[in-house]
Amino acid sequence: MWTDCVHILCVVFPYVIGGSALLSVPPQIKQEIASYKDIANEIINLSVSGAAQNQSYNRLAKFVDKFGSRIAGSQNFEHAVDYMLQVLADDKLENVHGEDAMVTHWVRGNESATMLKPRVYNLAMLGLGGSIATPPQGITAEVLVVNSFDELHNKSREAKGKIIVYNEDYEGYPTSVAYRDYGAKEAAMVGGVASLIRSIAPFSIHSPHTGWQDYDPKVKKVPTACITIEDAQMLARMAARGTKIVIHLKMEAKSLPQVKSRNTIAEIKGSKYPEQIVLISGHLDSWDVGQGAMDDGGGAFISWQALSLMRQLGLRPKRTLQMVMWTGEEEGGLGGQAYYNTHKKNISNYNIVMESDMGTFTPTGIWFTGSDAARAIVNTVVQLLKPINATMLYKGAEGTDIQLWMNDGVPGASLANEHPEYFWFHHSDGDTMTVMDPHQMDLCAAAWAVVSYVLADMEDMLPR
Amino acid sequence: MWTDCVHILCVVFPYVIGGSALLSVPPQIKQEIASYKDIANEIINLSVSGAAQNQSYNRLAKFVDKFGSRIAGSQNFEHAVDYMLQVLADDKLENVHGEDAMVTHWVRGNESATMLKPRVYNLAMLGLGGSIATPPQGITAEVLVVNSFDELHNKSREAKGKIIVYNEDYEGYPTSVAYRDYGAKEAAMVGGVASLIRSIAPFSIHSPHTGWQDYDPKVKKVPTACITIEDAQMLARMAARGTKIVIHLKMEAKSLPQVKSRNTIAEIKGSKYPEQIVLISGHLDSWDVGQGAMDDGGGAFISWQALSLMRQLGLRPKRTLQMVMWTGEEEGGLGGQAYYNTHKKNISNYNIVMESDMGTFTPTGIWFTGSDAARAIVNTVVQLLKPINATMLYKGAEGTDIQLWMNDGVPGASLANEHPEYFWFHHSDGDTMTVMDPHQMDLCAAAWAVVSYVLADMEDMLPR
Repeated sequence: MWTDCVHILCVVFPYVIGGSALLSVPPQIKQEIASYKDIANEIINLSVSGAAQNQSYNRLAKFVDKFGSRIAGSQNFEHAVDYMLQVLADDKLENVHGEDAMVTHWVRGNESATMLKPRVYNLAMLGLGGSIATPPQGITAEVLVVNSFDELHNKSREAKGKIIVYNEDYEGYPTSVAYRDYGAKEAAMVGGVASLIRSIAPFSIHSPHTGWQDYDPKVKKVPTACITIEDAQMLARMAARGTKIVIHLKMEAKSLPQVKSRNTIAEIKGSKYPEQIVLISGHLDSWDVGQGAMDDGGGAFISWQALSLMRQLGLRPKRTLQMVMWTGEEEGGLGGQAYYNTHKKNISNYNIVMESDMGTFTPTGIWFTGSDAARAIVNTVVQLLKPINATMLYKGAEGTDIQLWMNDGVPGASLANEHPEYFWFHHSDGDTMTVMDPHQMDLCAAAWAVVSYVLADMEDMLPR
Repeated sequence: MWTDCVHILCVVFPYVIGGSALLSVPPQIKQEIASYKDIANEIINLSVSGAAQNQSYNRLAKFVDKFGSRIAGSQNFEHAVDYMLQVLADDKLENVHGEDAMVTHWVRGNESATMLKPRVYNLAMLGLGGSIATPPQGITAEVLVVNSFDELHNKSREAKGKIIVYNEDYEGYPTSVAYRDYGAKEAAMVGGVASLIRSIAPFSIHSPHTGWQDYDPKVKKVPTACITIEDAQMLARMAARGTKIVIHLKMEAKSLPQVKSRNTIAEIKGSKYPEQIVLISGHLDSWDVGQGAMDDGGGAFISWQALSLMRQLGLRPKRTLQMVMWTGEEEGGLGGQAYYNTHKKNISNYNIVMESDMGTFTPTGIWFTGSDAARAIVNTVVQLLKPINATMLYKGAEGTDIQLWMNDGVPGASLANEHPEYFWFHHSDGDTMTVMDPHQMDLCAAAWAVVSYVLADMEDMLPR
């Protein structure tokens, strides 16, 4: 999950679409959707209490234990794709193949941030994606600690030649991520020689969080990394006492030439309108720390599981169910962009594009982007999830890799789930199988499968 | 906090001492205690909302930011003692001095645990206190993962030559700490060449927890370290799949000769019975990770603050209030032992020994060890804490450094406080000022000051 996902705030105050605010669904469509009740229950039962119980969790655990973190551009990620193509074929899915996508190839290398004054101390840190290296001997400089961009601008005369440390309070990911995105640029603009950003997280146990950052082509690039909440607060306390702080920053990060990667694709071919597509997805790449189990192993594997459940039940919808595990999401949705470029000529055949990339904890329903008429239909479909209490329809789907399609008017959906602690682990070494739960993944897979199956099997495509 | 603190469980189901279960307090003593109501309120007000608000937090922050972690035996710890002696004198406390105590001098050195098979991965790890080093080239061995000592014994024939990994579930600190204490010994007894223990913690973000461990003099010593919950679970999943795991463990740990350290002492001399003592304490040493802010900077600094509040109010109790900041608690209470050896000849003059070493979060009252008659009196004193809602009296004080006195019949007290997340941070890099709260420390200091002042000022010592 990379973009400024403005919808996260809405989890707290969701704008629920339902009841009188919705257009009414024509009776025959209502009836058509109601006729899927038994199939929906079969899918749910198979996933949650039947033979497929724990299946997506176990498959994910085996995968992330085998490959660990999987940054796009790495050989490890390509081996992971090869493995996926094999296991998807072994699972008897159809048209299993990779589709080429060029991706960024950023390599972290060795890195460290050592406080030299007032005492020697190694800060826990993670360089930010895309950061340049320091010179080989590193950068040794005095520190200017600020709590906001405003404070940086007010103190711009003190910034020249210094390492800028941002100790911004966490005000929610969509707001606070600006410090990760633009911290280096803003530091350079006032003459700073590097920037250290307090991790964009509400809670930490000495755990720094990485993520992509955006240089401005018009502004000098300076090395940039995240440090922990604890260390940022310590530096801020020291600075407030007037203590002189000197840090030695060393980063060997490299941006190598783009490399060819692949989106990983599998299908259940449609029986009646095979050229029409319901796309269901998560991203297979992760940051280069942790296991990428939560972000976004879970989303990728419940997408596989949705097709797998249909295959296990012998279900073949009228239109094609296509599952995509994206590459290069963390670097800005590079796999999604490549796929869009290749397939946009067939845009009229895309019924809905779906992506799960905000966790696979207890599902509550679906985020949806589309016309009012389509929204009313999807809301009716979501009511089939009553047995697992995931019947909410929220406004505004989220997904870096499906955004281009939604911009062009294709309906979009993302999985809504309870994830109050998502940003404790996001982009950190804490993103491992330990935060995942097999039952929660079963519920997510069931919700994901029911919605995608019904939309793929209904006689008509969603209105745009 | 080092010992198996069996009382922690009781925080959940406290055995409250109060009401009808208590002996009745003689009316004149009841009246005497009631007469302290105004002074108690003055202490509370000064600490919580008056000029001393945030004082102990700010003093602690300055101290831990200056020195960081402070393992006994280190030069850094001795510099920290020098600093404390200066600031205690600057605070106009009396008889400020250090008292010698010989302490263990264990040095971690460089250390790493690298999984070589099935893939290369650096485990987050912390060697355990007192562990021996590996040979200089490290130990490379296959892994045997067990979930319990019972499983180890059942699989003893598979253990020879292997690194034993314990993936024990966390069942509460007092129970689970047995794996840290005896994991190396049990591993060696079945022919294991090293042991890696899942950290004794209920929650982790890739954060290993260290702590002292106990070799058995009759059993071969093998190197031993903690790994994270996440990594232990990953290794257990791999082993359950039949995957061969090989780890390369390298530890340069050294146990150097004992060195002379100091307990740090300050007093308010008694006005009427100066030879009689109320001892109030926490330990100044910490593990060599994090900042030792929680364990036990908080306990040490609220003990200072208790005396500081009295000094600021011009209070001088009848008997001497002695504040001790211990050394070498984490290695088994070495400072406490030395102090006991020096002062036990005066045991009849010790009215009560108090230690705060289980956190300084929102206080709820006092844990107490002593006779029924003493308990009834202390319970009456604790009711003076009604303004801050800390009036509970629990059975059984906790404190490594005061245990010897309590064993000899001296009444003992420890601070009860709400600390549901204490073991998330305990002995890890997460033990920093970020987990501390100034208001909570003010409440703790007030409770600690009121109880110690009243017991130091009452006409009679507590009955034994």
